[in-house]
Amino acid sequence: MDKKTFLLFSDDLDKVLATFVIANGALAMDTEVTIFFAFWGINVVRKESARPVKKDFMSKMFGWMMPRGAGRLKLSKMNMFGVGTNMMKQVMRKKNVKPLPELIASAKEAGARFVVCTMSMDVMGIAEDELMDGVELGGVATFLGESDQSNTTMFI
Amino acid sequence: MDKKTFLLFSDDLDKVLATFVIANGALAMDTEVTIFFAFWGINVVRKESARPVKKDFMSKMFGWMMPRGAGRLKLSKMNMFGVGTNMMKQVMRKKNVKPLPELIASAKEAGARFVVCTMSMDVMGIAEDELMDGVELGGVATFLGESDQSNTTMFI
Amino acid sequence: MDKKTFLLFSDDLDKVLATFVIANGALAMDTEVTIFFAFWGINVVRKESARPVKKDFMSKMFGWMMPRGAGRLKLSKMNMFGVGTNMMKQVMRKKNVKPLPELIASAKEAGARFVVCTMSMDVMGIAEDELMDGVELGGVATFLGESDQSNTTMFI
Repeated sequence: MDKKTFLLFSDDLDKVLATFVIANGALAMDTEVTIFFAFWGINVVRKESARPVKKDFMSKMFGWMMPRGAGRLKLSKMNMFGVGTNMMKQVMRKKNVKPLPELIASAKEAGARFVVCTMSMDVMGIAEDELMDGVELGGVATFLGESDQSNTTMFI
Repeated sequence: MDKKTFLLFSDDLDKVLATFVIANGALAMDTEVTIFFAFWGINVVRKESARPVKKDFMSKMFGWMMPRGAGRLKLSKMNMFGVGTNMMKQVMRKKNVKPLPELIASAKEAGARFVVCTMSMDVMGIAEDELMDGVELGGVATFLGESDQSNTTMFI
Repeated sequence: MDKKTFLLFSDDLDKVLATFVIANGALAMDTEVTIFFAFWGINVVRKESARPVKKDFMSKMFGWMMPRGAGRLKLSKMNMFGVGTNMMKQVMRKKNVKPLPELIASAKEAGARFVVCTMSMDVMGIAEDELMDGVELGGVATFLGESDQSNTTMFI
């Protein structure tokens, strides 16, 4: 029982990168991985283009203010109006670290389970149609079930 | 052995909400839950009204600058001088998610153990009389003992 | 099997303090502890003085902007241009809590394993010569191996 469960609460580029670097490492070692996207974390699996979804005023505001997808996340520190984030992305490219969207695709392909928290979707007014393909929807019970079967569960 | 231990280090409204949503979910599934309140996290269990406690200058400063109780926490992101936090609270009400103080009361009632870190209290100059009723005081040993008995321990 | 593994991702003074208070507590109870320093966390184990290391432009920028060693970290909240951080350090001294550099030295002496993430070093352009003595270098596989052997793994 060496399954790993990550509760990805954050949409900070650095924390999301760490999550997927570890996830891909675990998958390469034949370890099962479940990533549960909650609260800001659901932005990681949003589609990049806007979808024709009907929303109330609040949901529109949240949707507009939050980053749309893995390509638009920012560093938690030293973002400096985007300069730091771009520096980090450039350096990663130079050092041959895959960019985040590719790390996410690799993890998915290698069999990671992606579960999006329905309560977070509801509160933030994000519809299923706005999420990338291949994600499941789930609630607290799903998360707890996964963590029960894991020897490592991390809140990120 | 499916006990869950949360080290609640943060007093960000979003992270505290996540903690208590998960805690209530676990309790509903007959899982034992211990929440250890450390550092900023002790603000979550402060009484809302000031108490007549004698304090030195530093403790007064900390007490004055930190939020007093679960009703006064702010989002870690998009707080926007309170606008974002209020939006989130409004949306939660509309979507029938219980407000944080009720989630805390539910968890307590359902048997969650609330332990407040004595070292944090000491450093921040918070007296026992300033904490909500029904919390225990404890130290690192208490936390480690709980985590030893848990299959999931998360730093939040 | 009550080993504890901490993935120290942050270089916020408060979170690093919490890590080492818990680590020292665990070590005092004869529990094995591994601390994995990743991303901002590698700043915790940087030497305080600059080293004559050749770097490209980006690495120089990162090196210059990030705090050099445990003595220069800042609170995640209420830093207030250093005033809050200094207040916290003063209060800790008054309350006889060891300052962070001493907590780190104690943990090392008591046998904690310090592993620094090589990918983070590479991306941030930190050379081995810039790290404090006695740290090991390792990657995701090392972290996963440690967490497999631990009953508690926390992302901090």
